[in-house]
Amino acid sequence: MAGTDRTQESMTGGPRVILVEPQLGENIGAVARAMLNCGLDRMTLVNPREEWPNQRAVTMASGATQVLDNAVLCDSVEDAVAGLTTVYATTARPREMSVRVVTPRQAGSEIRDAEARGETVGILFGPERSGLVNEHVVLADTVITVPLNPAYSSLNLAQAVLLVAHEWFTAGDGTPPDQMSTPGTWPAEKHELIALFERLEQGLEEGGYFRSPDLRDTATRNIRAMLQRARLTEQEVRSFHGMISALTRSWQHTQNAKRRRGEWPEDETAD
Amino acid sequence: MAGTDRTQESMTGGPRVILVEPQLGENIGAVARAMLNCGLDRMTLVNPREEWPNQRAVTMASGATQVLDNAVLCDSVEDAVAGLTTVYATTARPREMSVRVVTPRQAGSEIRDAEARGETVGILFGPERSGLVNEHVVLADTVITVPLNPAYSSLNLAQAVLLVAHEWFTAGDGTPPDQMSTPGTWPAEKHELIALFERLEQGLEEGGYFRSPDLRDTATRNIRAMLQRARLTEQEVRSFHGMISALTRSWQHTQNAKRRRGEWPEDETAD
Repeated sequence: MAGTDRTQESMTGGPRVILVEPQLGENIGAVARAMLNCGLDRMTLVNPREEWPNQRAVTMASGATQVLDNAVLCDSVEDAVAGLTTVYATTARPREMSVRVVTPRQAGSEIRDAEARGETVGILFGPERSGLVNEHVVLADTVITVPLNPAYSSLNLAQAVLLVAHEWFTAGDGTPPDQMSTPGTWPAEKHELIALFERLEQGLEEGGYFRSPDLRDTATRNIRAMLQRARLTEQEVRSFHGMISALTRSWQHTQNAKRRRGEWPEDETAD
Repeated sequence: MAGTDRTQESMTGGPRVILVEPQLGENIGAVARAMLNCGLDRMTLVNPREEWPNQRAVTMASGATQVLDNAVLCDSVEDAVAGLTTVYATTARPREMSVRVVTPRQAGSEIRDAEARGETVGILFGPERSGLVNEHVVLADTVITVPLNPAYSSLNLAQAVLLVAHEWFTAGDGTPPDQMSTPGTWPAEKHELIALFERLEQGLEEGGYFRSPDLRDTATRNIRAMLQRARLTEQEVRSFHGMISALTRSWQHTQNAKRRRGEWPEDETAD
């Protein structure tokens, strides 16, 4: 059990990311960054090819050094998974073994469930060039295969970790998928909008925008639909009133100038 | 419209990835790789800081050069979005504007829908250090904010592109989330399993594994549940028969040897 610390497995903090024989310190650093982006901070290194600790890893980690500082070094994958109850192996779909294969999304959700039951979970990632060998894949319960463009599916190590880790993060994240962000203000109440519509329509009426009562109904409906769709805030309703005032003044200003020059007033109405 | 080619927008191939003032050629190359991983090949560069074409971009693209070769160069974000109907801006949640904010997952699904209607879609990504400025954010319909660990949310450019692009890919991908991969074989039919169970139980009976009829029922149930859970293939059922035969021979072999040495036969039964 060289270097493993089973007591760490009782920490919260998501699944352990186990890099099997990683080749480059840079990649280990990039993995640390991707992990911490997604709230993961437990890393195990099985026989890294370069010396450890590694300065290039620190540089590439861009401040995610807590992940590197706490990384556990192991001599074998068997040691790395010893204290875990559930292990996933990331690899292209295996051709020589009958195994269960899940997407990163399915794995993210399953891992959250396993952690909620108190299980300890790890995810194996193979060396950059070759990926995991089958003897390491069979130390896992389940394979994760990342669906990608079949014509170009080689993913670098940190990118693979990012996609899998972010699915774990997302499975526990409550961010609304679709929201209005209205800092310092609030969506307008409907009476504010209706007052705005009426003010606008009155100004348009006075300006001769509506050619006939029939056109007026259609045009009014279309304008209201357009402004409803914009989901105005109460602040924007106030701004809109100000814009109507300014345009009215501008029009009066232009018309007065034209009259002073003896020209005809403009005639721009609804089509 | 310097360098834009509106006819390209009618191609299929997913949303256009628009990098605004990218600083490093390496990052443009890494973006190209992440894009092609997810089936995207249309990139626009708005005022890249380094010269273009760029050898470091080619090196980092790891073969995704088709993306670089087809990249469109623009002088302004206005030009870059000119031929598009729907634009997303990736940024941290804006603090000074009222905007619609969606997750990458929501965006992936919406973009698929928009493309199915024939719309042309682009996604803006800002410079590495600073991200998009507000005057560019407001050229978009909607903001994409990637939910991340709030304590460590700085994502590099290629990682941001990967997470957003992969959601677009996944929204159109039919990979079953959870499947058994059984290359060259097939899940066993139940009659094969039941025959295996009966063979195994008979062997255990003969070997004295069951101490009493009561224990026999419980133990049999547990063994069957354990083997059901493994979802054996028909090939594995055959292997299992072979293992029972080998173990039976092994036991006979041991017992015969013990008898020859005048020792008592073993007694290992169910608990």
